[in-house]
Amino acid sequence: MTTIKDSVHDHIEVQGVAAALLDTPPVQRLRHVSQLGTVTLVYPSANHTRFEHSLGVYHLADRALSHLGIEGQQAERVRAAALLHDVGHSPYSHNVEEVVYRRTGKYHDDVEGLLGEGPVARVLSEHGLNPDRVAGLVAGEGELGQLVSGELDVDRMDYLVRDAHHTGVPYGTIDHERLIRELSFVDGELVLDEGNVQTAESLLLARALMNPTVYQHHVARIAKSMLRRGTERLLATTDATAEELRRWDDSDLLVALRRCEETSGYARRLTQRDLYKRAVWAERRAVPDDLLEADRETIGGLERDIAGAANVDGDAVVLDVPDEPSMTESSSRVLVNGEVRRLGEQSTLVNAIRAAQRDQWRLGVYAPADESERVGEAAIRELGLDLDGARVRDVRPGIHATLDEFN
Amino acid sequence: MTTIKDSVHDHIEVQGVAAALLDTPPVQRLRHVSQLGTVTLVYPSANHTRFEHSLGVYHLADRALSHLGIEGQQAERVRAAALLHDVGHSPYSHNVEEVVYRRTGKYHDDVEGLLGEGPVARVLSEHGLNPDRVAGLVAGEGELGQLVSGELDVDRMDYLVRDAHHTGVPYGTIDHERLIRELSFVDGELVLDEGNVQTAESLLLARALMNPTVYQHHVARIAKSMLRRGTERLLATTDATAEELRRWDDSDLLVALRRCEETSGYARRLTQRDLYKRAVWAERRAVPDDLLEADRETIGGLERDIAGAANVDGDAVVLDVPDEPSMTESSSRVLVNGEVRRLGEQSTLVNAIRAAQRDQWRLGVYAPADESERVGEAAIRELGLDLDGARVRDVRPGIHATLDEFN
Amino acid sequence: MTTIKDSVHDHIEVQGVAAALLDTPPVQRLRHVSQLGTVTLVYPSANHTRFEHSLGVYHLADRALSHLGIEGQQAERVRAAALLHDVGHSPYSHNVEEVVYRRTGKYHDDVEGLLGEGPVARVLSEHGLNPDRVAGLVAGEGELGQLVSGELDVDRMDYLVRDAHHTGVPYGTIDHERLIRELSFVDGELVLDEGNVQTAESLLLARALMNPTVYQHHVARIAKSMLRRGTERLLATTDATAEELRRWDDSDLLVALRRCEETSGYARRLTQRDLYKRAVWAERRAVPDDLLEADRETIGGLERDIAGAANVDGDAVVLDVPDEPSMTESSSRVLVNGEVRRLGEQSTLVNAIRAAQRDQWRLGVYAPADESERVGEAAIRELGLDLDGARVRDVRPGIHATLDEFN
Amino acid sequence: MTTIKDSVHDHIEVQGVAAALLDTPPVQRLRHVSQLGTVTLVYPSANHTRFEHSLGVYHLADRALSHLGIEGQQAERVRAAALLHDVGHSPYSHNVEEVVYRRTGKYHDDVEGLLGEGPVARVLSEHGLNPDRVAGLVAGEGELGQLVSGELDVDRMDYLVRDAHHTGVPYGTIDHERLIRELSFVDGELVLDEGNVQTAESLLLARALMNPTVYQHHVARIAKSMLRRGTERLLATTDATAEELRRWDDSDLLVALRRCEETSGYARRLTQRDLYKRAVWAERRAVPDDLLEADRETIGGLERDIAGAANVDGDAVVLDVPDEPSMTESSSRVLVNGEVRRLGEQSTLVNAIRAAQRDQWRLGVYAPADESERVGEAAIRELGLDLDGARVRDVRPGIHATLDEFN
Repeated sequence: MTTIKDSVHDHIEVQGVAAALLDTPPVQRLRHVSQLGTVTLVYPSANHTRFEHSLGVYHLADRALSHLGIEGQQAERVRAAALLHDVGHSPYSHNVEEVVYRRTGKYHDDVEGLLGEGPVARVLSEHGLNPDRVAGLVAGEGELGQLVSGELDVDRMDYLVRDAHHTGVPYGTIDHERLIRELSFVDGELVLDEGNVQTAESLLLARALMNPTVYQHHVARIAKSMLRRGTERLLATTDATAEELRRWDDSDLLVALRRCEETSGYARRLTQRDLYKRAVWAERRAVPDDLLEADRETIGGLERDIAGAANVDGDAVVLDVPDEPSMTESSSRVLVNGEVRRLGEQSTLVNAIRAAQRDQWRLGVYAPADESERVGEAAIRELGLDLDGARVRDVRPGIHATLDEFN
Repeated sequence: MTTIKDSVHDHIEVQGVAAALLDTPPVQRLRHVSQLGTVTLVYPSANHTRFEHSLGVYHLADRALSHLGIEGQQAERVRAAALLHDVGHSPYSHNVEEVVYRRTGKYHDDVEGLLGEGPVARVLSEHGLNPDRVAGLVAGEGELGQLVSGELDVDRMDYLVRDAHHTGVPYGTIDHERLIRELSFVDGELVLDEGNVQTAESLLLARALMNPTVYQHHVARIAKSMLRRGTERLLATTDATAEELRRWDDSDLLVALRRCEETSGYARRLTQRDLYKRAVWAERRAVPDDLLEADRETIGGLERDIAGAANVDGDAVVLDVPDEPSMTESSSRVLVNGEVRRLGEQSTLVNAIRAAQRDQWRLGVYAPADESERVGEAAIRELGLDLDGARVRDVRPGIHATLDEFN
Repeated sequence: MTTIKDSVHDHIEVQGVAAALLDTPPVQRLRHVSQLGTVTLVYPSANHTRFEHSLGVYHLADRALSHLGIEGQQAERVRAAALLHDVGHSPYSHNVEEVVYRRTGKYHDDVEGLLGEGPVARVLSEHGLNPDRVAGLVAGEGELGQLVSGELDVDRMDYLVRDAHHTGVPYGTIDHERLIRELSFVDGELVLDEGNVQTAESLLLARALMNPTVYQHHVARIAKSMLRRGTERLLATTDATAEELRRWDDSDLLVALRRCEETSGYARRLTQRDLYKRAVWAERRAVPDDLLEADRETIGGLERDIAGAANVDGDAVVLDVPDEPSMTESSSRVLVNGEVRRLGEQSTLVNAIRAAQRDQWRLGVYAPADESERVGEAAIRELGLDLDGARVRDVRPGIHATLDEFN
Repeated sequence: MTTIKDSVHDHIEVQGVAAALLDTPPVQRLRHVSQLGTVTLVYPSANHTRFEHSLGVYHLADRALSHLGIEGQQAERVRAAALLHDVGHSPYSHNVEEVVYRRTGKYHDDVEGLLGEGPVARVLSEHGLNPDRVAGLVAGEGELGQLVSGELDVDRMDYLVRDAHHTGVPYGTIDHERLIRELSFVDGELVLDEGNVQTAESLLLARALMNPTVYQHHVARIAKSMLRRGTERLLATTDATAEELRRWDDSDLLVALRRCEETSGYARRLTQRDLYKRAVWAERRAVPDDLLEADRETIGGLERDIAGAANVDGDAVVLDVPDEPSMTESSSRVLVNGEVRRLGEQSTLVNAIRAAQRDQWRLGVYAPADESERVGEAAIRELGLDLDGARVRDVRPGIHATLDEFN
């Protein structure tokens, strides 16, 4: 047994298959993949990694299994999945996930290939575990998969608390001990026991508050869009493949961007925090519906059109159209008077938060500071944005420039 | 200048009028008045006092004043009011406030009399401050009164964080530093600066989550109702007056209850945590409207009626009809696109939380464990409760008995 | 099983005999006995109680037992002892322990009588446990008694961390998880495993730093001496016995002091923090050897002599002669190269800390502020203090008056 | 003014010259230089950077200046120096500092060149500050230089608390607020005010406990020695110069080590935490005196000799001879009875800790796990180690293999 000191959960005991997996290269690689990517450009203390998060998820999974009375190989499989659940992450985690997905068809939780080969596969089979079944748990399949990836999974519990600890933003500080103690299985579904509607709500609220303050902070979004754009150029220009890039770590990608002439400008700006500014920041109702459905090629074409119309270099326009907000927590299950209910049916807060998240949605167009006004005007025309209302004026170029970019 | 170490705000510097007020008996008395009263019977670490809270409120007021650029006598007056804002609390704070109010017409923030006499008045006048104007600030009067008692007051900021620290329930952990940094005055109104709708929401959510988990936890409510009932008996039986009782501390009241024969039973039960149980726990829709308006005499009559019908001792029935939930935070003000808006107009969350709070409202009837079933049946009849729906059955005697009473 | 939320250890699970003991009056009484007594007059947030500490000690004992693989009745006995280890405390804990001891011959850990009677005895025997054997563990007897009361006991681990949490003084923040994980039994002795000399030192250092800053802070010592003196007067004046007083809680004692005419002055001063000042503060070498050995009667006589010589009221002089510092931690045991060694043999720090503690020892004479100079002069003469050296002048009346009394 | 959220000090306000310096490339580069280098291989949460530490040091300097009443250009110069004090660090901070020093003659605090050029020089001169004088402060010159680099500097205060926060090891949690509040200048020397001998001791003890547990943990030392050796090979093999390398960040160095054939083995081992083991771990008295004085060339020769004698590859032997422990804190100054004293004269602890640190000193020889026994035998012969005593046997190959390598 190995005991590891963690700044969030204090001592974490690692044993069995998890202890053996810890020393495999795919798990050790997570030491060099940051948890929050460009968020550190807003919250400078947020330099924690997928490695410590994976340890935390393993730890909470272990506690949940012990609380639920699940033992033996079944439990070992979940512990392995918990520790391995993030080995599929590209460098900078979610920041370049889309880029990789478009070329490989794989999101970060699609790890069948990664677990079925090399030292991980060897360790799993030495412990009598089938790599495909572990990969299934990572993808949230089956009853126990809900613990690893689902509405009430331990992944979410760890990252909320850990991100709060490292950013200094207290909103994510949920009562994870209580959440784990109240879990049980009813008819194959993971539910929170009687009396925990509010416990479920607290999880939802934590993410609802962390989202705009941390995960979707506009400066992090700008940097992430620049990183994504740089990475696409890198794949287009060099002979690195998306499948290879997926196994790089943050250092590999950063140095590759620096060394490639076409991307060194983005690399310099990201390294020195000399970021683009918001040329447009438009709320949902100002945006034509079809723009929301646009694929990467269309977006690329629009960026070129805007650049042309604004008479700036093609690299100087980044268009950022986020997905519409989802809210998995709304379908988390709670026992109410002995019946399993979805939180969304039970809680008056769920719809309110859903509405709030739609309100917070913004389309962004980013450009170098001295070109952002020009690019903004061009973007409004080219994208057909309808920016008459008060909020829209608010987010036109120049207005937000006086706000504190750090917070 | 005196520096005091606080477990929440670390070092607190006290100077000027506040340093002089610190040593007056009414302020020192707060060392013996617990902040959360019977909540410690649910959360055993919650033994913090009104004294440390008052220091915390003074500290946050001082920081807010410095951030707002308010100086001189004006600022001294606010600092004095912040330190003194709770000297009007009865023993066990809010727990017996109603009892005192019915007899004196004074809530805890009605401190004109207390500040206009004795050493406090002396200190205030030595520092050139008018006691009545300080009392006005405590009551939330005037522009600066909003800082001491209002939707965005520093009282709330301190107690949420402090109660979270001492109960161990993380929900109250707001970002008080940020709240204070974002305050400003616009046309005489205290508002949060541009970009802080969510900061305001976080304050609202913190209280919305702390309320049922901590402040309105049913065990705390049961104990509080028993304490209130005991105190009423004490005032009816002995020659202690409500005006005197208001100046006692927790020890005085507890020992008085122990020594008075009529109340020693309540005192023993409270001391030994041998509390009544819920005989009825009824949601809003099960309760006849006129019961919500009932005054203390009517309640007393109903308690006697129920006891009679159940054939138990009069002391064995406690009826607890809470006020309908208020939500002052909904009228806190935020700058949005340069205009002052009430949070309630701006945030989709406000109405949802208001609805949630109504949902959480419960009427309680409490009785000794072995009589609670009988008392429950009688109470349903006598009060005309309509308990057919699922939730109502849920809270009938015996059902909740298996739930963990501590959490 | 009951789960209790604690501000230090988060969730504490209580089951078996401990859950049954929790509801007994002697354990519930600890809710009203403060952990640090008069220390709250220095650190206002330090209002935690023996009850929450007892829960913490139970929790750490439970973890240690599980780590050591001890189960069954043996373990239940230790858990009972951990929860009960402080039921023998008088009100204000150590503050009046001496007063009670002189009259009853019992220190707080002498609990055989208390456990052998009433509901505690009943619960213990219902769970098949012998009260005397549990009392033996509380007194540190036998192999497992070392866990409850010894150099490496869980009592110390809890109070250091808890007192740090509540005072805000970080020095007590030891790594209690690590300490517990490294415990084992070697030849019937509780030792720290190989590689933990420094872990043992950290425990020693934590107490060495907490001692003068918190536990022996001069303001706490003054208040404690006044409380002790008041309690002696109370026992001499009223018909309360020491055996009764031992079972009071803080409120009982405080109100008794207030109501007794002879002691109401002390009660007022303690309540309003209107404390005596140091008339003399003398280091070890200035004090005649025989004064260190003086019993209570001699001390009382000297107080009267000083009062006479200074021409002040007898109540106005309090003489405080602390015991010479002990350092149990120096005999804690650590495995070094496979051999059990006492920390004192192994660590170069032990002697240094012992010397530092001797250096910090001070005899105090306290008196009302306006009489302290006169009393100081008289005390130097009457006690035969030799106050020529620099440190001695340093602590004569008036010199320390400019220092911050709070910290 | 910019406000930055920090996980240790909460909100940090940056203004004046510091706000302008924040955006310069040499300061932003610190985002990619880890604070503790290879310590993260022992404590996985310790991924904090020199950037956040520099902000923390700036923040504490600002508070100290305000406490000391120092304003104007003098204060701006100190604030600039505080923010810039680490720009001279090589990648992985202290880990490769020696390598750079041997080739450039510059330690990390020799920043005259770095400040006198480019955007930093420009910002400083725009704010009327002389880069050489700022560099002087970084090097600890002059009265105010003591605040930036000295026995009581704010650098130490920040790193102890920050390293404790991120490793999870509580020993570094000093009371930095108190330290800063007690600083003053007496005759041009920075001292702690009267009554703070123990405050000074707490700083010393914190470092004394963090040293072996964190900074000098044997796994961190092994990894650091491997990194150092790899970096030397890199400089010897490629055309990168030490002056260039000094300006790289962690990613640059890590990727350079990976891409260079001669060093890719070390890079792989460091990335995958497949580290060498201790072949020898010898205490001070077992080591011939002249070995302590050996320069890098001699060490290199000895490594080759041992490799030859053990018949292993030259890369497979790493000899690690640490400097003898220093203890700057022993000369920190405290006011005692109105006189300035060095802590070493005043505190009985200083010599004890000095002795403890000598006791903890170890010479290490590291080698791949399967060759470590052979290398150990050879090293003992070649280095003339005298390993008869108990401690020495203790640390011979195989013995420590059963200890937990993480803690």
